[in-house]
Amino acid sequence: MTLVKVYVTYKKSILDPQGEAVKKAVHGMGFSDVHEIRMGKYFEITVDENSPKVKDDIEKICDGLLANPNMETYRYEFVESEAI
Amino acid sequence: MTLVKVYVTYKKSILDPQGEAVKKAVHGMGFSDVHEIRMGKYFEITVDENSPKVKDDIEKICDGLLANPNMETYRYEFVESEAI
Repeated sequence: MTLVKVYVTYKKSILDPQGEAVKKAVHGMGFSDVHEIRMGKYFEITVDENSPKVKDDIEKICDGLLANPNMETYRYEFVESEAI
Repeated sequence: MTLVKVYVTYKKSILDPQGEAVKKAVHGMGFSDVHEIRMGKYFEITVDENSPKVKDDIEKICDGLLANPNMETYRYEFVESEAI
């Protein structure tokens, strides 16, 4: 099995209201050193097989479902693990 | 400045309904090889200074705000970057 970690974040040019809200809360806790917080989504996808096709599939899943291509970008990394 | 990446996920023992829903949608797209999807939150935190105190601060922020310690776990990594 293959574990794929996918990170979906807003594009830099897009305002991240959730991140701004979290930053205000963090400042309210007294951590004024925190300059910026941006929030995103994180997916751990376990795929049965490990073939070159998996990379294509992951990109199709991200483009078609996980990320909004107008506002968001994504990146992914493959983690091999026999322990899954 | 220091960039800290924080990943918050449900504990393994906790059912992840969002992940289950995404998995069903992925299967509906025809990707039946996908065995499991778990969904989490991802934060990019930019901190002004870089001192040992930052690590403590990040843990306090995670424990006190970003993660629900009853249901979620978190991990974080420091990314040094002058380009931030």
